[in-house]
Amino acid sequence: MSATPATPAKKTAPDAARRSERSRRAIYDAALSLIGEIGYPRTTIEGIAARAGVGKQTIYRWWGSKAEVLMEAFMDLNEQNARAAAEQHPGTPVGASGLPDTGDLAADLKRVLRATVDELKDPRFEAPARALAAEGLSDPAFAENFVRKLLMPGLDLYAARLRSAQEAGQVRAGIDPETARDLFVSPIAQRWLQGTGPLDHAYTDRLVEYALYGIAARPRDPEAD
Amino acid sequence: MSATPATPAKKTAPDAARRSERSRRAIYDAALSLIGEIGYPRTTIEGIAARAGVGKQTIYRWWGSKAEVLMEAFMDLNEQNARAAAEQHPGTPVGASGLPDTGDLAADLKRVLRATVDELKDPRFEAPARALAAEGLSDPAFAENFVRKLLMPGLDLYAARLRSAQEAGQVRAGIDPETARDLFVSPIAQRWLQGTGPLDHAYTDRLVEYALYGIAARPRDPEAD
Repeated sequence: MSATPATPAKKTAPDAARRSERSRRAIYDAALSLIGEIGYPRTTIEGIAARAGVGKQTIYRWWGSKAEVLMEAFMDLNEQNARAAAEQHPGTPVGASGLPDTGDLAADLKRVLRATVDELKDPRFEAPARALAAEGLSDPAFAENFVRKLLMPGLDLYAARLRSAQEAGQVRAGIDPETARDLFVSPIAQRWLQGTGPLDHAYTDRLVEYALYGIAARPRDPEAD
Repeated sequence: MSATPATPAKKTAPDAARRSERSRRAIYDAALSLIGEIGYPRTTIEGIAARAGVGKQTIYRWWGSKAEVLMEAFMDLNEQNARAAAEQHPGTPVGASGLPDTGDLAADLKRVLRATVDELKDPRFEAPARALAAEGLSDPAFAENFVRKLLMPGLDLYAARLRSAQEAGQVRAGIDPETARDLFVSPIAQRWLQGTGPLDHAYTDRLVEYALYGIAARPRDPEAD
């Protein structure tokens, strides 16, 4: 995938810019709904243009390939969801990690993971995200892009939040943040991808509790049950 | 998928039984290598028969569909791998869960997860398993079978091992074994499926340590770092 800039021209007059913004959003919506309906391989630039009500030259002017359109449509959807989540909890301190940082690690993680589950179950997100994940499994080059551009940035936020908790003395010093993050992020991914069990807020709350405090009995701790 | 019994006729004379067993194994091998090479959708009964050097009627006599052939080929491969792993550690006590049960939960889990990583990286297993997982994401009916017949039985072993550790007082009483198992099984699945980080023995050892003892600092424990 080339590094073609994808933002519509910014030097146009206000009316043209509004039209551009409307087209761009229509193209994102068309790309996400099409891939959700017919899968990534059968989705074409032509199909996206027809659904969005724009000429396909409009798409080619802004993006180099359908993969680029789709990646950006997803990044845009992620941003919209993040903004909506932030608006639900105005005033929550946000740390350098970009995740909530109230100082209560368990509460912050539970809130973010509950919101993640809600997003994964949102039909606007679910069908295209599954189609993308399927394409990632069958096409290694696509997968590399998908993981690097869409998946890892989100995963890195959790590692950064754990690192800041580590600096605050709330996570043990020797813990590897990337491994630790996988304890609660990967189970959600697997239940969502493979349906290996119910995916709800009670589950994500348990994951956070178990990952933070462990599942082993603690002979030294009189409060352990 | 029907419940057609797939074991070749057992009442035949010894020579015929040997030939049947040879054909059955050739068909399993052909199915696994073909799906690894060209994916599930393009793999056909005819292709499997040609690669195995048997008539396609031989396959239709024993199985109802390519999905059945493939599921059994995988179950057979899993059994072979489990036997090979058991032979590497003769004399290890095996609990009711089917997993090693030496009484040392951490050591038992680490051993099984190291073997799992070795299997996931074994080329005989990796290509067909990825093809199956991809098909599972794009075809919900196939996925349901794949998860129920191939994935869940393995996952259930871990939950059973944790339940027995719970009965032995090594895992806290309130812990849900299915959630607890996901803490170390799902991260391996995600790194293998999506390449979100290195997958090696050091990683699986850390997962077991973190899941058992938690990542949070423990103010009451003077030995915590």
